[in-house]
Amino acid sequence: MLEDKLQQVLSNCDALSNPFVSKLRSLCMVPSVSAHGRSLQEAAEELRAIMVEVGLNAKMVKIPGGPDALYGELPVQGAEKTLLIYNHYDVQPPDPLEEWVSDPFAADVRDGYIFARGVADNKGAIVSRLGALKAILDAGILPSANLKYFVEGEEEVGSPNLPKFISKERELLRADGCLWEGGHKTPSGRPEIHAGVKGLLYVELSIETADKDLHSSFAPLVPNPAWSLVQAIGSLRDGDGRIQIEGFHDDVIAPSAKEMTRMEKNEFDPEMLMKWAGVTSLLGSASSKDRAISLTFEPTCNLCGIDSGYKGQGSKTVLPRRATTKIDFRLVPNQDPDDILAKLRKHLQDHDFGTIEIQVYSSEKPAKSDIDSNIVEAITVSAQTVYGQTPNIWPSMPGTGPMTLFVDELGIQCSMGVGVEHTGSGYHAPNENISIVDFTKGMKHAAALMLTF
Amino acid sequence: MLEDKLQQVLSNCDALSNPFVSKLRSLCMVPSVSAHGRSLQEAAEELRAIMVEVGLNAKMVKIPGGPDALYGELPVQGAEKTLLIYNHYDVQPPDPLEEWVSDPFAADVRDGYIFARGVADNKGAIVSRLGALKAILDAGILPSANLKYFVEGEEEVGSPNLPKFISKERELLRADGCLWEGGHKTPSGRPEIHAGVKGLLYVELSIETADKDLHSSFAPLVPNPAWSLVQAIGSLRDGDGRIQIEGFHDDVIAPSAKEMTRMEKNEFDPEMLMKWAGVTSLLGSASSKDRAISLTFEPTCNLCGIDSGYKGQGSKTVLPRRATTKIDFRLVPNQDPDDILAKLRKHLQDHDFGTIEIQVYSSEKPAKSDIDSNIVEAITVSAQTVYGQTPNIWPSMPGTGPMTLFVDELGIQCSMGVGVEHTGSGYHAPNENISIVDFTKGMKHAAALMLTF
Repeated sequence: MLEDKLQQVLSNCDALSNPFVSKLRSLCMVPSVSAHGRSLQEAAEELRAIMVEVGLNAKMVKIPGGPDALYGELPVQGAEKTLLIYNHYDVQPPDPLEEWVSDPFAADVRDGYIFARGVADNKGAIVSRLGALKAILDAGILPSANLKYFVEGEEEVGSPNLPKFISKERELLRADGCLWEGGHKTPSGRPEIHAGVKGLLYVELSIETADKDLHSSFAPLVPNPAWSLVQAIGSLRDGDGRIQIEGFHDDVIAPSAKEMTRMEKNEFDPEMLMKWAGVTSLLGSASSKDRAISLTFEPTCNLCGIDSGYKGQGSKTVLPRRATTKIDFRLVPNQDPDDILAKLRKHLQDHDFGTIEIQVYSSEKPAKSDIDSNIVEAITVSAQTVYGQTPNIWPSMPGTGPMTLFVDELGIQCSMGVGVEHTGSGYHAPNENISIVDFTKGMKHAAALMLTF
Repeated sequence: MLEDKLQQVLSNCDALSNPFVSKLRSLCMVPSVSAHGRSLQEAAEELRAIMVEVGLNAKMVKIPGGPDALYGELPVQGAEKTLLIYNHYDVQPPDPLEEWVSDPFAADVRDGYIFARGVADNKGAIVSRLGALKAILDAGILPSANLKYFVEGEEEVGSPNLPKFISKERELLRADGCLWEGGHKTPSGRPEIHAGVKGLLYVELSIETADKDLHSSFAPLVPNPAWSLVQAIGSLRDGDGRIQIEGFHDDVIAPSAKEMTRMEKNEFDPEMLMKWAGVTSLLGSASSKDRAISLTFEPTCNLCGIDSGYKGQGSKTVLPRRATTKIDFRLVPNQDPDDILAKLRKHLQDHDFGTIEIQVYSSEKPAKSDIDSNIVEAITVSAQTVYGQTPNIWPSMPGTGPMTLFVDELGIQCSMGVGVEHTGSGYHAPNENISIVDFTKGMKHAAALMLTF
């Protein structure tokens, strides 16, 4: 590939920024919340239209039990390799609504930033990667590899129907490397690459003791499910936050020496994390390195929500009939969500907190690619070209995705690219956003990767 | 008073039942939720109209800082005593709305029951006591005592502005006994009399650690306020439910021998409580007597609500920015809510759970009248006349009210009458209700009391 052709493609990305921001905003206006089964088909249709428009052979793919996925391909004559691109078009619920400055599905643009539920996670990356292909084709050239885009609609609820599909469609998704989901740069502009994901077990625990809320004067006699729930939750960790479920850490595999050496070269700024998160302290060791290690390799038991009784304005003297909590466990290699669930059940039974109903919402294994794999290398090189900085390479991101299906089932090495997000994008949080500058850069990076892989 | 005159009055109550049910329903349709400062003036105006209509000299009374109260009097020439009647026209919030079969402010009538927020607590009692006076006057006679009705609009938020008013208006409310708020019968039809109330300290504890909800993948580093709150709440009681705040029980005065002897004569059926509450077990000793003693004399620390993070449908992997709980402490003689608040503050500081904001919503002292006082005796006699059964006489009810202002400040012995409610009236709960039969009986009982006191 000639250098001037690359320059032409990057320049095309600048020209395509505005029209693709419009497409992105339009896609963000479709409230495709998978947890609520909302507008998923509509989002898929809109996305398919964009895929066709940029020159992909794109179609809806039936995922039995779930919403349709999208599959689009561009065969490149003579190409030896195939690059798979994985994304998802579904988004998290927008709650708490009252904390959004603008409607989460209005895709408001302010000061060069687009604000919308899903703009960072993960619609921005999808659209930027489609724009990248258009920029290449507009330059009259082709990618260096065959391209396959796969975009699912259930990632935010743990891709429950994807495993069965993947096991039956091994050929469709066959590839030599996979550009995963999204990614971002550090506040200082250093590109971030993540070669793995944590696993996830998401459960809701419920205790119900009566058929209605009661006047709280009955408290001397009537059991309060909120008390039982507090006891049950409290037993999951000790006062220092160490998880107390028996055997929880048994299967954890420590990071390899190669991974630990690579970690040393990465840059991580906890101060910046504190600043944008609006917190005044962080947990654990004060060393930046230790904190990076925790974020990358530590399994967690996190309270996503607690709900019981009266939560409105002022006071109401009531004895609740029901109490629930939503908990997520982020899991690290070689923990298995089914095994952790069994251990959680045993823990709750052994401690005899009464009848606790357990509903499982997500169950995903962790996954990790080789940090020296082709895809990591290609993302690194193309990131250097576009961002002019050596990327951080993390063995795992702190979040989750169905990467195990691709790495462990299909044998495809995967890596998060640089994406279009920034540290303060607010994944899953109110006022989720990306900057248009990052969006355009991300488009350029994806294009450079497609020309290098 | 002649027996046939009493029969005339009781028969008038039957005739007045329908029109007073209409007035009650109309009053219940005004959503006078004091916690939300809602429709209080409207409810007061409507109530004043009914008071005037039945023949009272009624007026609005300014309560500085709070909604107007109502005062109505009927001087009776030659009467030696004065009977004060205390009620409140405000109601609890109707939440959780989704559990109501009919709109909480529609005052729907089904199978002889009226369903509405506040119909039991406490609008039914007010209207029945006004109907009682009308029944007497319609018979061409007068009550045996001067009557004073006092109806406030802030009981459900702990009557915060009443103490100052009471201390300045001692003359206005001077009386020889006070018929308190409401009351009910046991499921077997035995009238219930309560000569006291528990005190109340109602607080909200809040922990805020960030300025927005975060993606839960930050859990290894970012403190989760829900965890801190669970620890803080969990520390308030031990595994067996004993309150662990240092000194909490120090000032409790045990019931007197006379009270304990009276308790022995009362009838209490825990099975019936379990049935209507829809619970399968109760706390503590299995003996009915012990349970009655707990309900009457035990101070409690009750979780009214817990709120943090995501509470919607399905899953959302979020690290909450804030966690809150609403707690009520029911207090017994000689506990002081200010003292308990100080001990709670100290407990939370000593345990070092981080910064916990404490908001106080209610602070009321317990109060108790003599179970041999004139008012208790008059209620007992008139209840026997109307219900044909010897009442239970409880030294205290399990709930709260500003009785201390009347008993301890003004020196007026007070007692809950039989009222219009039943065991399953669902005070503060969804589908609050009274039966029309109980309403009419309650009217008769109030009339008999007004002719006996």
